[in-house]
Amino acid sequence: MPNKQILFKKRPNGAANSETWALATNDIPTLQDGEVLIQQHYISLDPAMRGWMNDSRSYIEPMQIDDVMRAGSIGLVIDTKGDTAFQVGDCVTGWGGVQQYVATNGENWYKVDPNLVPMPTYISTLGMPGMTAYFGILEVGKIQEGDTVVVSGAAGAVGSVVGQIAKIKGCTVVGIAGGKEKCDYVVNELGFDAAIDYKSENIYRALKKNCPKGIDVYFDNVGGEILDAALTQLRMRARIVICGAISQYNNAGKIKGPSNYLALLATRSTMQGMVVMDYAKKYGEAAKQMGMWMMQGKLKSREDIYEGIENFEETYHRLFSGDKNGKLVLKVIEE
Amino acid sequence: MPNKQILFKKRPNGAANSETWALATNDIPTLQDGEVLIQQHYISLDPAMRGWMNDSRSYIEPMQIDDVMRAGSIGLVIDTKGDTAFQVGDCVTGWGGVQQYVATNGENWYKVDPNLVPMPTYISTLGMPGMTAYFGILEVGKIQEGDTVVVSGAAGAVGSVVGQIAKIKGCTVVGIAGGKEKCDYVVNELGFDAAIDYKSENIYRALKKNCPKGIDVYFDNVGGEILDAALTQLRMRARIVICGAISQYNNAGKIKGPSNYLALLATRSTMQGMVVMDYAKKYGEAAKQMGMWMMQGKLKSREDIYEGIENFEETYHRLFSGDKNGKLVLKVIEE
Repeated sequence: MPNKQILFKKRPNGAANSETWALATNDIPTLQDGEVLIQQHYISLDPAMRGWMNDSRSYIEPMQIDDVMRAGSIGLVIDTKGDTAFQVGDCVTGWGGVQQYVATNGENWYKVDPNLVPMPTYISTLGMPGMTAYFGILEVGKIQEGDTVVVSGAAGAVGSVVGQIAKIKGCTVVGIAGGKEKCDYVVNELGFDAAIDYKSENIYRALKKNCPKGIDVYFDNVGGEILDAALTQLRMRARIVICGAISQYNNAGKIKGPSNYLALLATRSTMQGMVVMDYAKKYGEAAKQMGMWMMQGKLKSREDIYEGIENFEETYHRLFSGDKNGKLVLKVIEE
Repeated sequence: MPNKQILFKKRPNGAANSETWALATNDIPTLQDGEVLIQQHYISLDPAMRGWMNDSRSYIEPMQIDDVMRAGSIGLVIDTKGDTAFQVGDCVTGWGGVQQYVATNGENWYKVDPNLVPMPTYISTLGMPGMTAYFGILEVGKIQEGDTVVVSGAAGAVGSVVGQIAKIKGCTVVGIAGGKEKCDYVVNELGFDAAIDYKSENIYRALKKNCPKGIDVYFDNVGGEILDAALTQLRMRARIVICGAISQYNNAGKIKGPSNYLALLATRSTMQGMVVMDYAKKYGEAAKQMGMWMMQGKLKSREDIYEGIENFEETYHRLFSGDKNGKLVLKVIEE
């Protein structure tokens, strides 16, 4: 059986392009003692992928040339050798990379039940994006009932969960998203109090209008001009959660720092970075809570699923163009 | 008796200039019942003055045209009327503004003992700059023994106290200052472990060399390129205290935001603004502790004193040119 893989071939300067990756077809790995073979069904596509390709210090080791492209994934165990952590038929999720098969001793892989929710949800709301939202808004944002919470990338994998959790906790929630469809979605489907379309509205005026008391917590997935606008509307002792900066990831030169950062001084506010891996010990607790909210209909998960490992690059670009509806997922199993 | 005053006449766009203020000679105010008349001896000059002149939202009301220029001050009560908070001969410090005499009911004025330390010290290390340093480094920076602490504006009124307190608490302290004389001063006189001369050294390389383990706490008085450099050397869970941004105060256009702010994410660090007024209830406790350290020789205070209210503008510009040695003070009493 061949194992199609997306290999990382060239570090991009600016946006990734057709030279960044190459599709390779290799043999399925031979299992060592204690290993399991996973047939991967779905791959998670995340903006963080862009950062992993830079050869610079960050929260995780940079990728090396010829590595299988790093990605979260989910699939089924189809073979084992010796004494292993999982059995054939187990559904497991981990860092499988953009490939169809992966061999592992099971470290940092978790068994999940695909009968409770569909597989893609385990790499979406019950996976890294959901965990990022959960710990980011609760432990870093420290939301309180009555807070005004603003979240950018509001229709995306992280932002949609951030806003829904804030609603569950009794906050007023304003989402920022690109385009009418996404804005309608977060208000009408997810129950946000308001949405701002950054493509057609003046973000400064819209924030002022929609947050008359000011912002208590701003959860930032985008950076750039939107972060600068949020800084102008902070209440006293506000918290800014720095989760990402998708507007800046493809800059070939310097990224744009927040010109209005001195608002932190005037309002005695805090800007804090977070990385979801720090909360690994509590993933189980979060998954249980979020699973409960999903069953109660309080937390919705939406995945935008594309098919075919050959379409990885095209699908990847949707992360940055915004041409997607919900968490971006690639189905790599061939049926 | 005439009362010479510096009046605020025109909001500067960029740096203040000769049109910003005018010297006026008015009569000494007539006391109302419950008021005291203070003859002011010393005026405090602080970088924050530039911000007060902007007509924009900040931590304190903007000044209005024709106001006496806002300033901290110290002087002696020379007259009273009716039942008053202070008596003739009391030495008091408060917000007297840039003028020779001020009448007040005593609200937000504090009586101090000029026999313990000289008057200028009460508007320096035992005044707002010292309080800013004390609460900023202890309560916002949350220094621990063994931390590597970096402070910019290290020879200045706030920075010099920040570094000395960090040394008292067992930290490794690296100061950043402009010029060899200031660098020698903070190392040889104040006991900092090292100093970086931003005028002659590459700040990125110098921070890397002097902070081999990285920075645990960066206390920022300057913003701009130095803040950006500090961000590249953060340890995990570092704290950045945003106290000021003197490099940016005179920008006519947008200020320079920290391009490297995503280091907060990679290192899970926090950037927090602080305003000293929030700690007003604990000023007494801090003054007692710092007074103790001064008597023990652990905390040194240095003021650079100029004379004559007519020289206010010239002295003010030293705040930004850096042409000063220690806390900038103007003596306004005429002898």
